[in-house]
Amino acid sequence: VGAGAVQQVADPYANEPKRHPALVVRSQQPFNAETPIDVLGTSRLTPNELFYVRNHLPVPHVDPATWSVRVEGEGLKRVELSLKDLTTKFKKHTVTATLQCTGNRRDQFNEVKKVKGLEWGVGAIGTAEFSGARLSDVLAYAGLDADAIDDVEHIQFEGLDSDISGTCYGASIPVSKAVSRHEDVILAYEMNGRELPLDHGYPVRIVAPGITGARCVKWLSRIIASKEESQSHWQQKDYKSFSPNVDWDDVDWSSAPAVQETNVQSAICEPRPGEVLEGPIDEVEVRGYAYSGGGHAIIRVDVSADDGKTWTTADLEPVYDRRYRNWAWTLWRTSVKVPEAKDGHIKLMCKAVDSDYNTQPESPEAIWNLRGVLNNAWHEVSVSIA
Amino acid sequence: VGAGAVQQVADPYANEPKRHPALVVRSQQPFNAETPIDVLGTSRLTPNELFYVRNHLPVPHVDPATWSVRVEGEGLKRVELSLKDLTTKFKKHTVTATLQCTGNRRDQFNEVKKVKGLEWGVGAIGTAEFSGARLSDVLAYAGLDADAIDDVEHIQFEGLDSDISGTCYGASIPVSKAVSRHEDVILAYEMNGRELPLDHGYPVRIVAPGITGARCVKWLSRIIASKEESQSHWQQKDYKSFSPNVDWDDVDWSSAPAVQETNVQSAICEPRPGEVLEGPIDEVEVRGYAYSGGGHAIIRVDVSADDGKTWTTADLEPVYDRRYRNWAWTLWRTSVKVPEAKDGHIKLMCKAVDSDYNTQPESPEAIWNLRGVLNNAWHEVSVSIA
Ligand SMILES: [Mo]
Ligand SMILES: [Mo]
Repeated sequence: VGAGAVQQVADPYANEPKRHPALVVRSQQPFNAETPIDVLGTSRLTPNELFYVRNHLPVPHVDPATWSVRVEGEGLKRVELSLKDLTTKFKKHTVTATLQCTGNRRDQFNEVKKVKGLEWGVGAIGTAEFSGARLSDVLAYAGLDADAIDDVEHIQFEGLDSDISGTCYGASIPVSKAVSRHEDVILAYEMNGRELPLDHGYPVRIVAPGITGARCVKWLSRIIASKEESQSHWQQKDYKSFSPNVDWDDVDWSSAPAVQETNVQSAICEPRPGEVLEGPIDEVEVRGYAYSGGGHAIIRVDVSADDGKTWTTADLEPVYDRRYRNWAWTLWRTSVKVPEAKDGHIKLMCKAVDSDYNTQPESPEAIWNLRGVLNNAWHEVSVSIA
Repeated sequence: VGAGAVQQVADPYANEPKRHPALVVRSQQPFNAETPIDVLGTSRLTPNELFYVRNHLPVPHVDPATWSVRVEGEGLKRVELSLKDLTTKFKKHTVTATLQCTGNRRDQFNEVKKVKGLEWGVGAIGTAEFSGARLSDVLAYAGLDADAIDDVEHIQFEGLDSDISGTCYGASIPVSKAVSRHEDVILAYEMNGRELPLDHGYPVRIVAPGITGARCVKWLSRIIASKEESQSHWQQKDYKSFSPNVDWDDVDWSSAPAVQETNVQSAICEPRPGEVLEGPIDEVEVRGYAYSGGGHAIIRVDVSADDGKTWTTADLEPVYDRRYRNWAWTLWRTSVKVPEAKDGHIKLMCKAVDSDYNTQPESPEAIWNLRGVLNNAWHEVSVSIA
């Protein structure tokens, strides 16, 4: 569709980009990898080359000189915008945003009952400073009147990544998120001050802060204003959650909404699972990240070393400041007393509270779902003292 | 402050309104009472005379002929609006909204550790059709420019209810909730098609849908645009939640944000706790309500009769339709199989999921807080079969 100059090759995976060897690879074709855990929880911005990669298809190689995005649909005049158009016709807007794979922390679900999906640990999440054109500005340029959007309920995106039959990746977000200047959705062409890496959607991707990663379409080719959601597989029959009693033989995909804004989340990044700490020690230093979708602030993170009998409230960075439009994770750290008479084994747990006072559920059993998405049970890490 | 013609009497509680005898009284002075449980979960709108009452102070008796509300503050010209002004100068806007006391379901916390506050069961919640003038229209009338509100962060409200020293009830909401036409905050002068009852703020109260009841100031006298939150006791040193490890001797009230939008909630209304069902039965009918603040939809309610080993997904009324701007509760019902070999005792549990896929935590221990607010642990009801 109208958009890019994608180089076709016989083996669609013959021309994948070089990746940093420290990435924790979860699959090679398509390439999927986590950020190494020692980077998580330590720096507010994740370096581009260590940012988690979630590809559904081979990486398309796009010529930026001929690339353009087509904007069309209900209430819009059809517009084609080149990379130069995006950078010159629209004000550059920068937003520090966390992106999280809908399957982040799926591994814990497999301990309950096997789910279908990549085995992600806590590293399918990262934060970067993205710059680009505001989606609301681009839609206004194409003629969308934000005060008269009765015919538009969703803004659909298509990527240049496609399968062997030519079906491209696609997703959509609610129009209310797309047209508001307070929602900060951008067509990003920079990530941490550099051009987008190939794995992250070069030359242009959607960054929809507060919304799950799967809707932030990479290698963007098309924007469609519509009464309908994206009809893509990933919008309709994936990235939804059901009751633990629903399984693949009886799932009705239409019965649940597509994931958009995500639930409150946190994870321990240090110490690491199975780590042996040198003893004797009275206290253990713990740090990690916390995040809530929809712009909600993280207002508190509690850590326990005694199965939740007592909790230590962690120091937050940044400290809670405003209630909404918080698009980036909160890093946290604290030290907790080592409980006595534990034979050197300690189980650490964390849980976060967001500005709506939503919290994480204790265990994964009751939120288990066939596709293994949105696990936000209390995160546990077991360590021992030598 | 400028507003009403309140009748003063020697005993401030001598002139309280007549109440319906079916209300479940939790305190007499000030009057606080729950909606009877057989009304909850059965009708979408709660009748005015059975709507839960949460009064902090004696009920002020206001003469509607002389009542007015003063609107003033940062960026506003001072305006006094009579009841006639409200009904004639502004379009009448109707919104079906759930109001919930921040302490709803506090009783379950007392089983963990005693908290300070009224002993509320599941009935400090209700839904009505409120009509009035939009707060955004009233603020615009007083000159607030929604696009230039840098000097305003909060909209404060004061009520005509006051203590013996003359200190009135007060609260505030974030300006972003107040000025948006999508947030539906109103100065309500009707409740279910009739004038407001005395207990519910006659002649005018704030209804801020999606926000906790404590901010929906009754017997409204004053609206103030400000850089600051309300400095009232109820905004600053009440209606906040802390870690279970914080108690009255070490609480730092400034360390947590005032409750505004509330977390995801649900409760079983039928059968009732301790009810004896006539046997033998294979299945038990269960019904209740579910609600999430901030306009989030309830997308699923699960019910278990076997301690969470299996879950039955309930039928919702209304069925999930849109993701945001859902201001009213969802009623639900289902029947669950009676587990075998239970000696006639059954424990029923429910949990809800909202459109951000936030869920309720399993147990109250880890969300226990000194003031006993926002309990949204799974709701349990134990019954037996005769
Ligand atoms: Mo959220
Ligand atoms: Mo909510």
